[in-house]
Amino acid sequence: MLEELKKEVLKANLDLVKNGLVLFTWGNVSAIDKKTGYVVIKPSGVEYDGMKAEDMVVLDLNGKVIEGKYRPSSDTPTHLEIYKAHPEIGGIVHTHSTYATAFAQAGRNIPAYGTTHADYFYGDIPCARFLEHHEMDEYEKNTGVVINETAKDVVAIPACLVAHHGVFAWGKSAGEAVYHATVVEEVAKMAFITENLRPVTKRLPQHIADKHYNRKHGKNAYYGQGDKK
Amino acid sequence: MLEELKKEVLKANLDLVKNGLVLFTWGNVSAIDKKTGYVVIKPSGVEYDGMKAEDMVVLDLNGKVIEGKYRPSSDTPTHLEIYKAHPEIGGIVHTHSTYATAFAQAGRNIPAYGTTHADYFYGDIPCARFLEHHEMDEYEKNTGVVINETAKDVVAIPACLVAHHGVFAWGKSAGEAVYHATVVEEVAKMAFITENLRPVTKRLPQHIADKHYNRKHGKNAYYGQGDKK
Amino acid sequence: MLEELKKEVLKANLDLVKNGLVLFTWGNVSAIDKKTGYVVIKPSGVEYDGMKAEDMVVLDLNGKVIEGKYRPSSDTPTHLEIYKAHPEIGGIVHTHSTYATAFAQAGRNIPAYGTTHADYFYGDIPCARFLEHHEMDEYEKNTGVVINETAKDVVAIPACLVAHHGVFAWGKSAGEAVYHATVVEEVAKMAFITENLRPVTKRLPQHIADKHYNRKHGKNAYYGQGDKK
Amino acid sequence: MLEELKKEVLKANLDLVKNGLVLFTWGNVSAIDKKTGYVVIKPSGVEYDGMKAEDMVVLDLNGKVIEGKYRPSSDTPTHLEIYKAHPEIGGIVHTHSTYATAFAQAGRNIPAYGTTHADYFYGDIPCARFLEHHEMDEYEKNTGVVINETAKDVVAIPACLVAHHGVFAWGKSAGEAVYHATVVEEVAKMAFITENLRPVTKRLPQHIADKHYNRKHGKNAYYGQGDKK
Repeated sequence: MLEELKKEVLKANLDLVKNGLVLFTWGNVSAIDKKTGYVVIKPSGVEYDGMKAEDMVVLDLNGKVIEGKYRPSSDTPTHLEIYKAHPEIGGIVHTHSTYATAFAQAGRNIPAYGTTHADYFYGDIPCARFLEHHEMDEYEKNTGVVINETAKDVVAIPACLVAHHGVFAWGKSAGEAVYHATVVEEVAKMAFITENLRPVTKRLPQHIADKHYNRKHGKNAYYGQGDKK
Repeated sequence: MLEELKKEVLKANLDLVKNGLVLFTWGNVSAIDKKTGYVVIKPSGVEYDGMKAEDMVVLDLNGKVIEGKYRPSSDTPTHLEIYKAHPEIGGIVHTHSTYATAFAQAGRNIPAYGTTHADYFYGDIPCARFLEHHEMDEYEKNTGVVINETAKDVVAIPACLVAHHGVFAWGKSAGEAVYHATVVEEVAKMAFITENLRPVTKRLPQHIADKHYNRKHGKNAYYGQGDKK
Repeated sequence: MLEELKKEVLKANLDLVKNGLVLFTWGNVSAIDKKTGYVVIKPSGVEYDGMKAEDMVVLDLNGKVIEGKYRPSSDTPTHLEIYKAHPEIGGIVHTHSTYATAFAQAGRNIPAYGTTHADYFYGDIPCARFLEHHEMDEYEKNTGVVINETAKDVVAIPACLVAHHGVFAWGKSAGEAVYHATVVEEVAKMAFITENLRPVTKRLPQHIADKHYNRKHGKNAYYGQGDKK
Repeated sequence: MLEELKKEVLKANLDLVKNGLVLFTWGNVSAIDKKTGYVVIKPSGVEYDGMKAEDMVVLDLNGKVIEGKYRPSSDTPTHLEIYKAHPEIGGIVHTHSTYATAFAQAGRNIPAYGTTHADYFYGDIPCARFLEHHEMDEYEKNTGVVINETAKDVVAIPACLVAHHGVFAWGKSAGEAVYHATVVEEVAKMAFITENLRPVTKRLPQHIADKHYNRKHGKNAYYGQGDKK
């Protein structure tokens, strides 16, 4: 059942690797079928290499496995919690992508520093609090609960960090969720660099700049074979 | 029409991906045909994968589409504004390349810290101000206006950042524009590292240095198979 | 002898390169055969390119070569010291992977900042002290001694840095040791970024955010070819 | 003439690209033939792609071209100056590799922070001063002069930075020079990270660490398909 959606979810999982967002089996993607209300998700701890569409697991929104020979991703209850709260979401992805996870580890939002960010996220990408002792029993479910607590407009800001943990992102489809997760990592990297610029170093002395610019581009340039580039 | 120029513009766009300057469809390159005054530019939001020369859009300097089945890049009015002000420019590129965009996000010039920079840019790469409320109506056109305000000698310094946004670079051709955009990203990365060096850590103790150097290169070296590397 | 284990050790050594943990011949992997008590290890200073299973060296726990035409890795006495203290270890790897080695150079533990870390290491990855003058005679052996001094529960925390030097990691097999060494590098990189986040930069002005978000996703979006992504 | 050496120099130049040390045509490698005293060097501003052994230029130590259809690298006088002072050197390389060049831009030595460094460089990699106004006439030659001023024991420390410029490294052969240039870049990167570690961030709360470690490795682990990795 849902063979097309399984292929989409498989492709989205493999794109996580291709886009440099995951090491080993870290990360998972799911999608929901609006008609049946069933969710298709990656199996837990299975290597991406050699993974097939038929390895995907089908569950209902209560977490009951409908089809599949593997256990679903251990983060499945988080995905389900988000789907239940937001019918406008069609696909969800979880990663530990490096820069975005560092923001999560610092317990910080990814600030909207530029238009690269604003092209996809209408405001900071928020960071959900970590769970308290008494919430540990249903850890994965409650991770979904704090995400729902924190992510207010899931269309305008289609991602949320979880403190000390990592990234959840979503979209209209599994593919769009991966797209958004890729942007989250890139804007996190840009934000890290932005926060670490500090003009404390002296510039190149002017006479050296003159020399280098002119030996390539000046009237008597002598770099290259006689044409100026 | 302008089939050769379309091929050049297509190649320059694909080189953006090859040189690691863009994610997805972020970024665009154009070139101008001096004879007709027509500009060839990438279509908006089309994936690089599978893009063909005939997908390029041809416009006049007023933005009127002369040929092409797609909408031109949404940043087209910025390109046109720069071409109009600077007849010496033959190609223009826009990117959100990571390190250079971080400088833009911090609202800073990329300082001329070394000869790598001076080999291509005769002074800091300037950062144009961001637009005010009353300039938002013709946002892309006005982005060109502030670039023209800021970039004084477009031959000696063939690039300009736009605050909170990204990079514009240019050259005699689309290919040279991409070359310059690639150098902008590299000197931005070098500048970021330069600004973050701080000698606060203790060196390796001398007796450990002695041991490691000598077990590889000393009289009684015992690393490797008897030859010294 | 031990042909299967040699193949495993060879593969694990090659995975060091594939996973980006070593330059040139830097790094080595060994495994122990529980039945014979023999250790299989990479030869010293031999290039990975073209290395064969039969190039692996077989030794007993006293360092006596049992089989092999090459000298064993110069770090062999460190490996042996760890195997002798910890029968639960089946494979050991040594790397100078970039971020983890920087923590070693700073003489610091890799702090447990997030769940990526906690998924594999139950607490900080400790950093062993560097050796004193009087310990230099049996440098490699004593490196194993300080690792054993420092790494308390080798199952719960399967790695240890050595100050000013690099990384040792281990596991039930050579393959698991490489897996752990790969995680050490990734969590070191995440920790480095985490420690360098500092919210000192102003956000993108709201009217620019509005413009960029809306030209892509608003009612009158004009980015792309008419569909909204 | 010197066909074998030309091949070596070509290969060494191509290895600069392969090892990620140069962009475009930035960088050059030479080697000296001890018998004739002739130097073989890369032509200036020629692309690596498609470069052939016969494109290499042969000069004597006074800079007179003996063979070759191209102009030699514009940095040739620097190479010659170093060869003249140090008969023990067989090959020289110049790069603008990113991290090492950042140290040069900051006018700093690369400090010997660890054994990765000490395995190849017996002490800090020094940074030569930049040239004064009155030294600009023979800029490239005088760059060699300040390197010779600064690099005291060229065997024990086979590299030298030049302030605001980049890296020169050398060795017994062109190949060893490239090897050393590659190590310079790696230890520069490690030093940059080392100088930027600062333990200011809170660790993961213990109850979250317990949860994550135990859901993978504890008695009731539920991650994966029933085996514990």
